[in-house]
Amino acid sequence: MAVRQGRYTLLLPARPSIHSSSAVVGRTEGEGPLAEEFDYCYDDDAIGEKSFEKAESALHREAVTRAVLKAGITMKDVDMIMAGDLLAQCIGTTFGIRDMGIPFVGMYGACSTMALTMATAALLVDSRAAGCAVASTSSHFASAERQFRQPLEYGGQKPPAAQRTATAAGAAVISAHKTSAPCIEAVIFGKIVDMGIKDANNMGAAMAPAAADTIANFLNDTDTSPLDYDMILTGDLGKVGSELLIELMQKENGVDISAVHADCGLMIYDLEKQDVHAGGSGCGCSGAVVNSYIMKRLANKKLNRVLFVGTGALLSQTSALQGESIPSVAHGVLLTSGD
Amino acid sequence: MAVRQGRYTLLLPARPSIHSSSAVVGRTEGEGPLAEEFDYCYDDDAIGEKSFEKAESALHREAVTRAVLKAGITMKDVDMIMAGDLLAQCIGTTFGIRDMGIPFVGMYGACSTMALTMATAALLVDSRAAGCAVASTSSHFASAERQFRQPLEYGGQKPPAAQRTATAAGAAVISAHKTSAPCIEAVIFGKIVDMGIKDANNMGAAMAPAAADTIANFLNDTDTSPLDYDMILTGDLGKVGSELLIELMQKENGVDISAVHADCGLMIYDLEKQDVHAGGSGCGCSGAVVNSYIMKRLANKKLNRVLFVGTGALLSQTSALQGESIPSVAHGVLLTSGD
Repeated sequence: MAVRQGRYTLLLPARPSIHSSSAVVGRTEGEGPLAEEFDYCYDDDAIGEKSFEKAESALHREAVTRAVLKAGITMKDVDMIMAGDLLAQCIGTTFGIRDMGIPFVGMYGACSTMALTMATAALLVDSRAAGCAVASTSSHFASAERQFRQPLEYGGQKPPAAQRTATAAGAAVISAHKTSAPCIEAVIFGKIVDMGIKDANNMGAAMAPAAADTIANFLNDTDTSPLDYDMILTGDLGKVGSELLIELMQKENGVDISAVHADCGLMIYDLEKQDVHAGGSGCGCSGAVVNSYIMKRLANKKLNRVLFVGTGALLSQTSALQGESIPSVAHGVLLTSGD
Repeated sequence: MAVRQGRYTLLLPARPSIHSSSAVVGRTEGEGPLAEEFDYCYDDDAIGEKSFEKAESALHREAVTRAVLKAGITMKDVDMIMAGDLLAQCIGTTFGIRDMGIPFVGMYGACSTMALTMATAALLVDSRAAGCAVASTSSHFASAERQFRQPLEYGGQKPPAAQRTATAAGAAVISAHKTSAPCIEAVIFGKIVDMGIKDANNMGAAMAPAAADTIANFLNDTDTSPLDYDMILTGDLGKVGSELLIELMQKENGVDISAVHADCGLMIYDLEKQDVHAGGSGCGCSGAVVNSYIMKRLANKKLNRVLFVGTGALLSQTSALQGESIPSVAHGVLLTSGD
């Protein structure tokens, strides 16, 4: 049963384990530095579908199907799936998983969705409300461009601060503690933070204050410092947001996280060689990086304690057109290696 | 700690209570038969805001603020808010609650959102992950028309099967068991059900099979029959969907729920006198009806056992335009009167 530590953090004494995870990605992500880490890289971002939205659903379905298969179970063994994505009404998710017959807990956290669904699934497994839960998410470059900015056909130029929404999906099967599997020892839900940023091409700057708030609260609640972690992993601030986060943590909280900070949006692409501006974003970005690279290194103990903080920009095309700023949120999950 | 009963149902032995609830509505809802039940009825659906989306956010904010105030607590006493709405990227919610400083668990269940957020909040209070959680939702006729069909300015005609999205918001403050307050004794998360309905003006028909699936699973898991409840309350199937649900329950499950069935979409309007076609819908509809009329009658014991089943149509404008059918989901919460 979860134990509250400080104002915001929840410790999970039962330490739910990630029994399996999977990550599937599109072409650009398959050409990036983590290509070897993913379960499958598609050559064509259409994934054989007639629209990019249907492609995203196919990607989501594939990630969940692979994770469940790798856990050695069937869909019937899954008590609940916590899932969401960036598209309006979360259709990347709902059409992706509609035939699975799993009780569906729909969640929305923008790019923080992987951390949000993982945290919620872990809490429900910890309290035994679920014996086995799946946490999953997806995003797609082309469906997100159409949703939040312009369709690809418009051929718009992007400023350097813009991030590229990753075509990617990730899923984790979370169940009772299992020796040697990575586990979730603590979670933290973030508050909405809005510093007045209005530029939908600079999401990193909008999200960095939310990430700083959640990280500072977690460190404070648990009385730990950055060096108590092998990695404080944000997903996804990109280049601009990551620099801002390090600065904010230093200035506002007097904490230097630079030695252990990493960002999924900077890991998934090679910013020197690939045309991805400030790096990756989209819930599938952290979904894929955490459920491949990170989980593998927790399993083989090259990493032992990773504080994964998913960051989400809670805007819509409508709110942006109505002149609103970008409220942001960041949720955290403490991932540790097995016993 | 939740106890699984059968395949899908979770019993909550700690019986979290609804310490307070509130419902605020727009003009048409304030002219309906439940006017006296609501906390506040606005004369003008713009709620003093410059857009209908901002109006929905204001409505959401008002419902949460009133519920927290009525509970005799402050925002700082709330550990988490589970909330969502119908708009793309849930902006009705995020802009409504952004200044409250409460850890935010974003959820998406279309019109099932009130049951979804209530069920999740109750589970987390039951396991003590949250000492106090708010569950809330909103919808707005004009923002939903623009989102899912046409903007009001288009002046489109509606067929008789169409439901009117209620301009309404509801919120509940859920905390440890308290004698005499209504409480949540069980919850059930539904699977996605898609019977191939494609008409966005006939959501009731799309959602009825999901409602039937969840109700049948709940009755089966708990080995109860409809007459064990004072009310099996759907939200919101409207006239067409309600008739279909009763027929489906009879034909597919051999269970007659007609004596105890009620639907929030049929309760919020007077279908004879108001121009609302097949009745109300939108997550604010059940959000407002449950958090006013129902809670009051549970508190004064005129109702003792209400199985509230929120139903959601998981479509988007894009999925509809791409020729997709409407996947639906239904989540249930067993509300009981106090000791």
